[in-house]
Amino acid sequence: MGVHEHKDLLEKLGVDVPRHAKMMEMGFESYKNQFMSQENRPEAMKYFNWFMSEMQGQRIAEINKLRENKKPAIGAFCIFVPEELIVAAGGACFGLCGGSPATIADAETELPRNICPLIKSAHGFKLQKTCAYTQSSDFIYGETTCEAKKKTWEILGKHHPVKVMNIPHMKREKDLKLWKEELVEFKEHLEEITEEKLSLEQMKEGVKIVNAKREALQRLDRLRSMNPDIIPISGKDGLFITQMGFLDDPIRYTQKVNELCDELEKRVEDKISVFEKQTPRLMVLGTPFAPPNWKLHTAVETSGGAIVNEESCIGHRYYKDNVDLDNVQDEDTLMQKLLDKYSAVDCACFTPNAPRIDKVLKMYKDRKLDGVIYYTLSFCHTYNVEAHLVTQALENEGIPCLVIESDYSPEDAGQIKTRVEAFLESISFKNKAKQFKQNQEK
Amino acid sequence: MGVHEHKDLLEKLGVDVPRHAKMMEMGFESYKNQFMSQENRPEAMKYFNWFMSEMQGQRIAEINKLRENKKPAIGAFCIFVPEELIVAAGGACFGLCGGSPATIADAETELPRNICPLIKSAHGFKLQKTCAYTQSSDFIYGETTCEAKKKTWEILGKHHPVKVMNIPHMKREKDLKLWKEELVEFKEHLEEITEEKLSLEQMKEGVKIVNAKREALQRLDRLRSMNPDIIPISGKDGLFITQMGFLDDPIRYTQKVNELCDELEKRVEDKISVFEKQTPRLMVLGTPFAPPNWKLHTAVETSGGAIVNEESCIGHRYYKDNVDLDNVQDEDTLMQKLLDKYSAVDCACFTPNAPRIDKVLKMYKDRKLDGVIYYTLSFCHTYNVEAHLVTQALENEGIPCLVIESDYSPEDAGQIKTRVEAFLESISFKNKAKQFKQNQEK
Repeated sequence: MGVHEHKDLLEKLGVDVPRHAKMMEMGFESYKNQFMSQENRPEAMKYFNWFMSEMQGQRIAEINKLRENKKPAIGAFCIFVPEELIVAAGGACFGLCGGSPATIADAETELPRNICPLIKSAHGFKLQKTCAYTQSSDFIYGETTCEAKKKTWEILGKHHPVKVMNIPHMKREKDLKLWKEELVEFKEHLEEITEEKLSLEQMKEGVKIVNAKREALQRLDRLRSMNPDIIPISGKDGLFITQMGFLDDPIRYTQKVNELCDELEKRVEDKISVFEKQTPRLMVLGTPFAPPNWKLHTAVETSGGAIVNEESCIGHRYYKDNVDLDNVQDEDTLMQKLLDKYSAVDCACFTPNAPRIDKVLKMYKDRKLDGVIYYTLSFCHTYNVEAHLVTQALENEGIPCLVIESDYSPEDAGQIKTRVEAFLESISFKNKAKQFKQNQEK
Repeated sequence: MGVHEHKDLLEKLGVDVPRHAKMMEMGFESYKNQFMSQENRPEAMKYFNWFMSEMQGQRIAEINKLRENKKPAIGAFCIFVPEELIVAAGGACFGLCGGSPATIADAETELPRNICPLIKSAHGFKLQKTCAYTQSSDFIYGETTCEAKKKTWEILGKHHPVKVMNIPHMKREKDLKLWKEELVEFKEHLEEITEEKLSLEQMKEGVKIVNAKREALQRLDRLRSMNPDIIPISGKDGLFITQMGFLDDPIRYTQKVNELCDELEKRVEDKISVFEKQTPRLMVLGTPFAPPNWKLHTAVETSGGAIVNEESCIGHRYYKDNVDLDNVQDEDTLMQKLLDKYSAVDCACFTPNAPRIDKVLKMYKDRKLDGVIYYTLSFCHTYNVEAHLVTQALENEGIPCLVIESDYSPEDAGQIKTRVEAFLESISFKNKAKQFKQNQEK
């Protein structure tokens, strides 16, 4: 694995190299068991296997190469961070490590136990110095989308440079106006690092690169979810690809996702599915899955179900909208278009957030799905409380829904699997009854 | 008790009268056991005993008398609601029921289990229709100070009129500008109820009434906490008085608090303390205590300690600042002065919130206290995460601190008492060692 070849760099970054190497080995072992054992994976997944082995090796070297040339390297925990501007400045935007239970005990020396595992895991990675991304970031760009994060930045700021983007509670015109100012301020933070002004052309180029990345993911989404009889790639792989999009170089990544999609298109033509016919096709709603949090996908796909979409920040919520570059002639308009894109994100942090419900129902129908899992990380109040209105809307439409709240501990994996199995059984029963009725009516 | 005499009114309000009567009887029983059994209570507590028996009786009748005359009755869960304006409009501002475990099971039919008990309790009171205040409110004025509340308003709004005040995440000038607009908008909501414009004179009168109330509570605070050898009233009574301030008529209440303070002043002169000499004097930091949540105070004061201050929203954070009326000649200036007062509230919902730490250290030293209990309601992320920075600052100053997180269930009462006893013992030991050292040095 790449981590060994880049030992000197990792040491220079202050990474706890032996501990880091051990964690990466465990992560890769887990990846091998859960991913590489899957049958009939697309050929193009080889690139993502390679990236898995180099995500804390060669990719870290690439990022630090950029930094040597005064390009910004910004760590983030949220899709509200305008990566277009970072890419425009020639830098790298990446999601920080926050999906492992291995750092949580350390984090709990400074944070309460009963907050979201993602925040604790991420904070623990900083305390342990076992995330090369965290160590490579000029600053961590926090935000106010959740109060546990908002308050954790105050503590994390003692260990690493942190800036905070103020995401409003509401989306009234006046709130959006302040949000736009946050975008402009962020651009200025980047210019402090590069020591030069970002030009309109650079920014448009940044937008184009990230738009292309999102388009590739939209294409992957369609291939995963829009062909009822053919699912050409597992949900686990679909999730993993999306996760890697928060780490990889966007141009290379876009090319690799598109190459994969070419292969998947061929599979659809040739009717090659990685799941048996009649496999219940599920959508997952809710909070993000930071790698290596593959627990739910593994539970579903080893129990006779398939996940074909994640309505999640590491998923559809990230790539659903693009930035419109038509008629953008000046910086202010560009910032407005960025704001239009970001304020279309239907995060549960906003009140009210009704458009999310309409979107979920539409996604479900468009994809002709069999059921929904509403997934939340433990103690995520916003998605947890919003679950009531969302699941009620699903219930009104007769859509089968299973609600799962979980953290990163392996302890509930068995219980989740049991609940998922029962859920899948009820869906299969329902589908068979429907088919029987349809046959009789003929 | 007053609830029986006002049965017709309660029925008209949609209150579930039999269930409500039963709950009030249980509440009064609990009050009798925990409060009326205290020895050597001030004479002036008689008024508060009476108010306890009439809080869901005569007081509800008074509020509905106002409503008959188109005066606003506004229910709230937060001290950011500008009660000055409600009083100015001749109406009543009151804290809604939210301190009882008896409504939580009902709330959990719509809300997650792992959010703050205050929110669940309050939501349950609405579902059960067992809070005459909730039933008497023209609207509930929610706010965005905590995300579980912010998202709960969306659900509560299906059962009762709710408006939401947007309290910002930060206190930058631009955030405060929007906050001021919320104050103006709130005034307009009130004018819709009264169907007449609020005049500057009315608003100044409203401010004066609420300033006087806060001054009475500041006076009570000084009497409770500033005389190391004499504690003329129990912490439990001090808390109860503060709690009733969110329900009672402000003018009558101010008078009654001042009458009590007259008596307490006399007690200080006469050296009458309700606690033995050397009783450790504690301050409680953190989240609010909605009645009948008296668990912590009872634990401390039946274990040989005294609570002499609550740095809490039902406590010092509520009454610490007044609205400055000097040179207020127009409405805009008045709104600015209101904003100055409210934005001085150091709620953990803000980031950063450093002034809170300086204030806590100063309060501790001014009052020459013996220790601190940092209390949070379960799952209150903001106060829970902020605890790290606060307790670290206390530790740096060598201030004894006990952290307690609790909900409304009686189950942890024994455990809390054990922890409090051990804490008080360590304080007594420390104080004796200090005294011994001082004697030796003489």
